[in-house]
Amino acid sequence: MAGLDRDGDVFVLDLGDGENRLNPAAVAAINARLDEVTAAAGPKALVTTAEGKFWSNGFDLAWMTANPGEIGPFIQSVRVLFARMVTLALPTVAAVGGHAFGAGAVLALTHDQQVMRVDRGYFCLPEVDVDIPFSIGITELIRARMPVRTAHEAMTTGRRYGGDDALAAGIIDGVADQEKVLATAIAMARPLTGKASRTLGTIKSRLYATAVAGLVSGEAVEVPV
Amino acid sequence: MAGLDRDGDVFVLDLGDGENRLNPAAVAAINARLDEVTAAAGPKALVTTAEGKFWSNGFDLAWMTANPGEIGPFIQSVRVLFARMVTLALPTVAAVGGHAFGAGAVLALTHDQQVMRVDRGYFCLPEVDVDIPFSIGITELIRARMPVRTAHEAMTTGRRYGGDDALAAGIIDGVADQEKVLATAIAMARPLTGKASRTLGTIKSRLYATAVAGLVSGEAVEVPV
Amino acid sequence: MAGLDRDGDVFVLDLGDGENRLNPAAVAAINARLDEVTAAAGPKALVTTAEGKFWSNGFDLAWMTANPGEIGPFIQSVRVLFARMVTLALPTVAAVGGHAFGAGAVLALTHDQQVMRVDRGYFCLPEVDVDIPFSIGITELIRARMPVRTAHEAMTTGRRYGGDDALAAGIIDGVADQEKVLATAIAMARPLTGKASRTLGTIKSRLYATAVAGLVSGEAVEVPV
Repeated sequence: MAGLDRDGDVFVLDLGDGENRLNPAAVAAINARLDEVTAAAGPKALVTTAEGKFWSNGFDLAWMTANPGEIGPFIQSVRVLFARMVTLALPTVAAVGGHAFGAGAVLALTHDQQVMRVDRGYFCLPEVDVDIPFSIGITELIRARMPVRTAHEAMTTGRRYGGDDALAAGIIDGVADQEKVLATAIAMARPLTGKASRTLGTIKSRLYATAVAGLVSGEAVEVPV
Repeated sequence: MAGLDRDGDVFVLDLGDGENRLNPAAVAAINARLDEVTAAAGPKALVTTAEGKFWSNGFDLAWMTANPGEIGPFIQSVRVLFARMVTLALPTVAAVGGHAFGAGAVLALTHDQQVMRVDRGYFCLPEVDVDIPFSIGITELIRARMPVRTAHEAMTTGRRYGGDDALAAGIIDGVADQEKVLATAIAMARPLTGKASRTLGTIKSRLYATAVAGLVSGEAVEVPV
Repeated sequence: MAGLDRDGDVFVLDLGDGENRLNPAAVAAINARLDEVTAAAGPKALVTTAEGKFWSNGFDLAWMTANPGEIGPFIQSVRVLFARMVTLALPTVAAVGGHAFGAGAVLALTHDQQVMRVDRGYFCLPEVDVDIPFSIGITELIRARMPVRTAHEAMTTGRRYGGDDALAAGIIDGVADQEKVLATAIAMARPLTGKASRTLGTIKSRLYATAVAGLVSGEAVEVPV
């Protein structure tokens, strides 16, 4: 379950040491941690990290299979989490030290900046291969967070981007050796803690207004046929 | 008239060996070939090529001059063709071995990827020089297929981009020697044939939803005054 | 007050030799110069320059403090000026030889191209630091004029971009030594004078339709609380 630490003014959200897949408990835990962070006064920033070979491997398919009747509301809760993250009123950096797949990759994109491990781990949107189209809100979010040609490639081919590939494609801001991913992310976040403000939240809300409108609109959930 | 061949799972649409300008017969032929391709089962991709010094030189102005009363419905049929191409439910690559001008350049952009001949041939949107503004749908399509600063330059200056220029500007994905343009495009398409699916079509439809809405909306057709 | 010269077919608008902040008199003077330029027949382009260490330092805060009741209409007049500049029916180049901050930086962005002094002077959007969110129209304008990741950084961090930084980030088109900024801008504009036309204005209007709609919509003006 997501844990929260603090390194000076930088909050560190730890997604866990497993595959860190998204299910209702994980979403609730992340939201509770974000409640703590947003309630804190003063300068602040957020770094989201994980331990082990996964940052987040996306939706918890086992939970979804076991709870078919709850898939719709659950996926909508993830979309709302993405809308919350991309408009958070403080600087955010994803310390992507392991795989970020599907909804996990999108979660990484909702941060202001991303740093990936240089030698291992992929950023990948495999939806085209598992026959689940991106919703309109997710489509707009991805489009708004990377160059248009990169969004096209990432979404239509399911390409697995290593750290250097993702940097060259304009998806992320930096790469680091395994043991330095978290420290690099914290170093990127620390000089920005003074920017945390309601104004920053408004700036992000307007910058991603189209994506946010789609994410919170309650689009129908599509499952493979 | 457009011909269709097949190289393994890759369909090869040949626009012809002339200027390959768009007129009702050409649009009908291309649509008929696309009908064949979309009807085919199994893994597949499409490469669109041409012979000689032109890939497509745009609208058939001679036909338009001879048929002034049919210009409106014809141009609308081209917009619908562009909307079809950009949302095609299979991977597409334009093997641009010659000039791609005006509507011909836009047709190239409707493909997922483009490869140009390295030493000769231009990608050019000359509309500003011939006094025909881009329709809203075409504007949105161009904007959605290249970096914003490149779209501005291409649309407001009519710059002629050679292969290397177009690659550097982010309009295309690769360049090749004349005799290797088609083979390069096929090599780009082949590993992606397994992505052909209704899901891929949905992904593209949402990625280019604004452009498609404009293209199919039946905007008034503008002609030089 | 803004002056207007002419170098062949290139009009040169001089913002002044002070901080060149925007207030009602400055906006009226710029609009009057633009009236002259738009009324001129034949091939033409516009280069906007300034003297000294500032190109434009943004809103005239002293005037705003002294005239609190006029802030709303004044800021709306600046938005309309931005909408006019970004859709001007002739090629435009900003010769940014000094600082371009806040509304001054946005004014630079409304030109087709920008060249900055290489060794000194910053392009900076400090709004996040002074607690004034960008309006929806300004947000759309900035988004539409630079790569998405750059827009995010510029708007959420208030980063000060020197000339080389701005060039690398995709905000501007070139840099030059101090004494060559204006000459470089004129050299960029001159080959494009033949593009001046109603069609060019229509092309730009459609390319920036969303931004223009926001700019002229009369959004409420926000002031720091």
